[in-house]
Amino acid sequence: MNATHLQLAGNVANSNERLENENRRIFDALGVFAINLMGSPGSGKTHLILRTIQGLSAQLQIGVVEGETTSVTLDSEQVMASGVPVTEVNTGGIAGVDATMLSRAMAKLPLSQLDLVLVENVGNLILPASPRLGTHSNVLVASVPEGDDKPYKYPSIYSSADVVILNKTDLLPAVPFDLAYFRRGIQRVNPAALVFPLSAYTGADVHRWFDWLFEQCGLPKKASAMQQRPE
Amino acid sequence: MNATHLQLAGNVANSNERLENENRRIFDALGVFAINLMGSPGSGKTHLILRTIQGLSAQLQIGVVEGETTSVTLDSEQVMASGVPVTEVNTGGIAGVDATMLSRAMAKLPLSQLDLVLVENVGNLILPASPRLGTHSNVLVASVPEGDDKPYKYPSIYSSADVVILNKTDLLPAVPFDLAYFRRGIQRVNPAALVFPLSAYTGADVHRWFDWLFEQCGLPKKASAMQQRPE
Repeated sequence: MNATHLQLAGNVANSNERLENENRRIFDALGVFAINLMGSPGSGKTHLILRTIQGLSAQLQIGVVEGETTSVTLDSEQVMASGVPVTEVNTGGIAGVDATMLSRAMAKLPLSQLDLVLVENVGNLILPASPRLGTHSNVLVASVPEGDDKPYKYPSIYSSADVVILNKTDLLPAVPFDLAYFRRGIQRVNPAALVFPLSAYTGADVHRWFDWLFEQCGLPKKASAMQQRPE
Repeated sequence: MNATHLQLAGNVANSNERLENENRRIFDALGVFAINLMGSPGSGKTHLILRTIQGLSAQLQIGVVEGETTSVTLDSEQVMASGVPVTEVNTGGIAGVDATMLSRAMAKLPLSQLDLVLVENVGNLILPASPRLGTHSNVLVASVPEGDDKPYKYPSIYSSADVVILNKTDLLPAVPFDLAYFRRGIQRVNPAALVFPLSAYTGADVHRWFDWLFEQCGLPKKASAMQQRPE
């Protein structure tokens, strides 16, 4: 590294903040509600996206941005198969999608036709250096087999979340997990966070998440109740 | 940042490489086999350590280094309760323990009395910038509920592993997981890696992992078979 590289690093930071605001203005102007989906590798972010598309695509036009650390596109292929517009962000090994990457991805989505954009961030519980992308909400996808101690061990990412999804509740009978202890851990670092336990795999209890999305997108609540089709 | 900070960054990189070699020389001189345990948050690194202590502490003197991103010490407390020497590394939010941090931790362990040191790294599948600590082996703890696609999605960390533990095999009947697909993913990026499917929770199939540890520590194989006490 040399002084030129330092200068570049400074520019990148300024550029991220500027682009964060710009991304948000574009979403707002086009009436799109945008979510940054974070979570550990394997917490079920892609499954939650697929379940959400399956449950809500009749009422909401959904677009997806898939963040990957490599050129491997397994998640994107799954989401593409569901028929909604998907664009990819390859972070080149970096631990999180930033505002600059999101800005480029947004340009490839038909934003003016969309109500909701789900950005699947890279699997990680360490909050990246530039965690703000210009989305409206941070949604953290936790999962039962990860263990009930994660809010205590990763307080930064838990405190950055507006919503915590506790996924894979179908495994509650099979693994040791104290839901009250988990909730207390979130309460301690982020009392305002909403917590939605559900199973994206079986579809159990997804209606509260759907209702929240409807509300954010300006549609009446409980519409999702009609939509629910547990498998 | 300024030129002084750049100089410091360069010094840190040099210092990490120097300390990596020094850490290894100290381990070798004292006859200690040292392992860097990596894996996603909630893959079961701490449970594997506790199971290993329970199974092998009659034959091997084990010490543990617990890497945490915050000052929360939940894992350390659990391991301390097992009675082996434990020392903590707080990475201050950084995504991985480096050689400098390990060097400081080593100074607090009674290394001359130990056969095996297990370093529990921070929960993360993104390979950190300074992934080499001076340990002898990288062991990656994967887990069944994370999904069978992780070797394809996180090839860097999978290619850096000498051993892949596939933990939580007790959940194989409860979740979709194709073991052959998982193995092919590892084979593709790291054909030399050993793969040990087991359950640290139930104790199932831990004997292959124990045998491998015995071998690395210069003790006869299969001794662990006498030790096995599935719950």
